[in-house]
Amino acid sequence: MHTKITTPENDRFLRACRSESVDCTPIWLMRQAGRYMPEYRALRDRYTILEMIRTPELAAEVTMQPLRSFDLDAAIIFADILTLLDELGLGLRFIEGEGPVFDQPVRTTGDLKRMEPRPPAESLAYTLDAIHCTLDKLENRIPLIGFSGAPYTLACYAIEGRGSRDFPSAKKVMYTDPELWDQLMGLLADQVGDYLVAQVEAGVHAVQLFDSWAGSLSPQDYTRYVMPYSQRVYAKVRACSDLPFIHFATGSAGILKEIHQAAGTVTGVDWRIRIEEARELIGPDVPVQGNLDPLALLGPEEEIKRQAGAVLDAVKGQAGHIFNLGHGIHKTTDPGKVKTLVDFVHAYSRRET
Amino acid sequence: MHTKITTPENDRFLRACRSESVDCTPIWLMRQAGRYMPEYRALRDRYTILEMIRTPELAAEVTMQPLRSFDLDAAIIFADILTLLDELGLGLRFIEGEGPVFDQPVRTTGDLKRMEPRPPAESLAYTLDAIHCTLDKLENRIPLIGFSGAPYTLACYAIEGRGSRDFPSAKKVMYTDPELWDQLMGLLADQVGDYLVAQVEAGVHAVQLFDSWAGSLSPQDYTRYVMPYSQRVYAKVRACSDLPFIHFATGSAGILKEIHQAAGTVTGVDWRIRIEEARELIGPDVPVQGNLDPLALLGPEEEIKRQAGAVLDAVKGQAGHIFNLGHGIHKTTDPGKVKTLVDFVHAYSRRET
Repeated sequence: MHTKITTPENDRFLRACRSESVDCTPIWLMRQAGRYMPEYRALRDRYTILEMIRTPELAAEVTMQPLRSFDLDAAIIFADILTLLDELGLGLRFIEGEGPVFDQPVRTTGDLKRMEPRPPAESLAYTLDAIHCTLDKLENRIPLIGFSGAPYTLACYAIEGRGSRDFPSAKKVMYTDPELWDQLMGLLADQVGDYLVAQVEAGVHAVQLFDSWAGSLSPQDYTRYVMPYSQRVYAKVRACSDLPFIHFATGSAGILKEIHQAAGTVTGVDWRIRIEEARELIGPDVPVQGNLDPLALLGPEEEIKRQAGAVLDAVKGQAGHIFNLGHGIHKTTDPGKVKTLVDFVHAYSRRET
Repeated sequence: MHTKITTPENDRFLRACRSESVDCTPIWLMRQAGRYMPEYRALRDRYTILEMIRTPELAAEVTMQPLRSFDLDAAIIFADILTLLDELGLGLRFIEGEGPVFDQPVRTTGDLKRMEPRPPAESLAYTLDAIHCTLDKLENRIPLIGFSGAPYTLACYAIEGRGSRDFPSAKKVMYTDPELWDQLMGLLADQVGDYLVAQVEAGVHAVQLFDSWAGSLSPQDYTRYVMPYSQRVYAKVRACSDLPFIHFATGSAGILKEIHQAAGTVTGVDWRIRIEEARELIGPDVPVQGNLDPLALLGPEEEIKRQAGAVLDAVKGQAGHIFNLGHGIHKTTDPGKVKTLVDFVHAYSRRET
């Protein structure tokens, strides 16, 4: 099914993604639907994360929650980058206090062969249904963003079986077993590409590729072992759509050029590099998204405004900036501080432009 | 006591730290004495880490262990950045599988007041004794490096009470309680500075300041909340010594200029930025130390040589390069691979210069 894309009433986000003029800087926040919100926690008391993701009505409801409290310029579908791996048979569980764990990690060619990839349009149909459901609720007011984890980040989880500080098992496979690496990364690239295409066909207005752990790589290793697979993802999406494609990695100050080169029309920038230096690295005409430290939201209001103002000042008068955090909202964040930030970004950038 | 510094027989490391000519590139490795070595694990079976650090003969023995197996160009005293906090009364314990934990973290001015700082020359005398003992054993063959954690990294541990991915409690204090932050960072800067001075007076040939978690900061926050205290450390050391001072942080690609500006005559570079780009950022005449991914040592020999060769090629013909990993040796590393790396770096750089 190919939904006709209509321009939402508020198209600031989409315009900024295309470096077009805007009345003020658009803002959305990674993990804007999450545990920091009491209404999210109320649902989480009754359902597991996976139940919430796999029930389209619930996923749509969670997607809508932050939009009722904050004047955000985009919604992002509530889902998780790891469901794709779960649907490949890796056995995802979320353990309280430890995070995600896979009971069937992929360490050998045998493990890989046990995986039974189905088209993501089937295996992840619940997220596509959640997109339909959310689009109905949004009534074309603001754009909806779809997303996926990138092949490298998914491969890290698949091989380690859990989060890690430095991913020794994944890198060991990368260095010692190029064939297994290529098979796993190739399979994931196809799955991720098809998944993003399916989300585009379901009607999202933009997609974001999260390569959360790419910042664990040297620029040389990223280029050699990862970039070709992210390029394959990008090519699949580009073959069917010219929608904005945001490519985001954390801790990526030293590989930003490579991240931009691999994929995307917009580059996500985390807070550990000045946004003006990021623009110099990737080219001043490339739209950028970022880059406030999410933990700045733990500070007092004047600190939040000072830091957000500094980000806006650094790209003042330049087209192609979407305000965001450099990573997801921290679970201890006061929702009132999120409102302060969102309203400040609009008011300050409107005044300044 | 102020030991007269004499130049060691092998002074490649010291010469490279001063950008002087060398016959081949010097190499030492962070955490070169550690769990990857069977002889280290044999001692660890009998003693706790803190016993090993606090018994000068044992600390000296551990310091010497890697020198018997590998042709390293510098030794680094066996110690831990966290003993300084333990001696301030924070109650350090190492928990298997979890890492270091402090029973008395610092969250309030009251917590801070309970600390009873003594001169590090007294409180950390065991490490100074270990330095004397090691210098005796080294018989002036190669230089000995002293070190300390930097104020920010120590403050993160002091406030969080343990390691963390993003240090929310530390940043919350930094943003919301500037007075407590200044008092804690000031106290730590004085302790760290005095500790490094004491190590210099005990006879080390160079020092390294480890700001392991500085990479969690935006360049703006590093400059505002951290740099002044690292500058204070550096000023203390510089007031009594012109020995090489290496300043190292991980994940620092976006704050390298600031790291260099804050402290040091040599800048440590982790693997997540090309070393030639690091040199462009901080200035081509600043000596650099780095920058192989420690996990490259989990790869086959040809991969190790390929990656180490690429680092050497990137700074070929340039003075002021000390080869090192971009972080400590991983505990699962095969010691044979370490030997391969050390010998390769010497042979390849000798051939190439």
